[in-house]
Amino acid sequence: MSESLGVLALSETKELESEVKGKDYFAFSKGAKLSRPVRIGLWDLELARQNIQNFASGTYRSLPAKQLDKILYTLGMSFYCATDLQKQGDKKTPATFFELFVGNIFARELGVNPRKSVDVLNLDMKATLPTDFLFDLGARKCRIHLPVKLSTRERVVQVWAHQRVLDGVYGMGRFRGILVVGTETKAATETLKVTEICLPDQWSVYQMFISKLRRVYYLDVPARYAALGNVFPYIQVKPLSAFFNEKSKLLSSATD
Amino acid sequence: MSESLGVLALSETKELESEVKGKDYFAFSKGAKLSRPVRIGLWDLELARQNIQNFASGTYRSLPAKQLDKILYTLGMSFYCATDLQKQGDKKTPATFFELFVGNIFARELGVNPRKSVDVLNLDMKATLPTDFLFDLGARKCRIHLPVKLSTRERVVQVWAHQRVLDGVYGMGRFRGILVVGTETKAATETLKVTEICLPDQWSVYQMFISKLRRVYYLDVPARYAALGNVFPYIQVKPLSAFFNEKSKLLSSATD
Repeated sequence: MSESLGVLALSETKELESEVKGKDYFAFSKGAKLSRPVRIGLWDLELARQNIQNFASGTYRSLPAKQLDKILYTLGMSFYCATDLQKQGDKKTPATFFELFVGNIFARELGVNPRKSVDVLNLDMKATLPTDFLFDLGARKCRIHLPVKLSTRERVVQVWAHQRVLDGVYGMGRFRGILVVGTETKAATETLKVTEICLPDQWSVYQMFISKLRRVYYLDVPARYAALGNVFPYIQVKPLSAFFNEKSKLLSSATD
Repeated sequence: MSESLGVLALSETKELESEVKGKDYFAFSKGAKLSRPVRIGLWDLELARQNIQNFASGTYRSLPAKQLDKILYTLGMSFYCATDLQKQGDKKTPATFFELFVGNIFARELGVNPRKSVDVLNLDMKATLPTDFLFDLGARKCRIHLPVKLSTRERVVQVWAHQRVLDGVYGMGRFRGILVVGTETKAATETLKVTEICLPDQWSVYQMFISKLRRVYYLDVPARYAALGNVFPYIQVKPLSAFFNEKSKLLSSATD
């Protein structure tokens, strides 16, 4: 991570034209290569470097939300952007890094390591379903189903579908679904204009007819998703930093 | 389609080592480019060319199943393989062709054109959900939900999830889910060994806990999926040619 920060500190940057209301973006550049869009208001290399020890020790959790947002965004995006400048079209490595980055944060907050598959025991049948992270918090406690995506696009229905399987096999809400996403921004190849791709109507349909996700956390929250918290079926979409404050409520209350 | 058949008739072929029991494969080649694996027992360029008029007129439906299997396989795979030899890594064009190929077959058999989205009307909410093909067979009749994929891999859960949404919005089974897939074979980049990637346990879990698909039709049926018809939850996986014979039963009976 600090290696990626080092690479980016030495890279040139290029301002991008933003079509996302209230958000401005730039990209790192190296020759003809351009990183994905980076949000100006959330990228803070200096702050991230100063707090990399606090991140490692866990003391970062008590920082003010605005600083926490910047640190999480900068650390989470750094590897992604550095890879953009080094390789062409490599999607798997940054996705794996981001998954481990988020999995590690939650593992430390929850005090337990996750697993990545679940046994589906059903009368005479035994199957193993590969999933995103699952956290077992102990007997008679809820469990956490933590899918992690750099961005969602059209594949996101998978998250609600896996939540549905967990609800069916283990009982409604026994696993609490918490989706963590990086950003939904994209720069057009030709024009370099930055747009944010959101499908709030589809999310509402999934939340009503497939299963319930308890939270969706973002590094860079799209406004159209944040607004889903105010209308039925009330999908709660927040910055990842919010998890640190609402963690205990989220794990104990049956309704929130 | 006849253009693709022409290109392939002039192309060199290369035998591939098959790790799929009872099935042999070759690939078309052009310079360093290699098409995806083609099943020797199902590819029949001559038969396909002879019957392209029967396909266009619809009279092909009364041919013996074995001939029909070969014609459907050869026509369905021809564009895919021809594209492999002409472009590099183009996934979208062949997928679109295959979707239209299958959509056209069903539109003619069902006597109605499909649509590609559905209105989700729910009290005060109105949203449009993009889907695969949907066929409206008329008042008080069942409707058809027809997802089409060249191969399924890890994205297949989407099919059961969309079926679940349709069940939730319009009533259980009002839309009958029929999935049509090309093949599940893949040649390893280095060794060129052909394998068939199947996840039958996951399919069973989806069929039990997300929704019910009525049929899965393949151009080249994987044996491990065909076997799912004999065990709970009885997923019926058959060659696409079977649709022509069981069509009326499939549209009228409530249980099959």
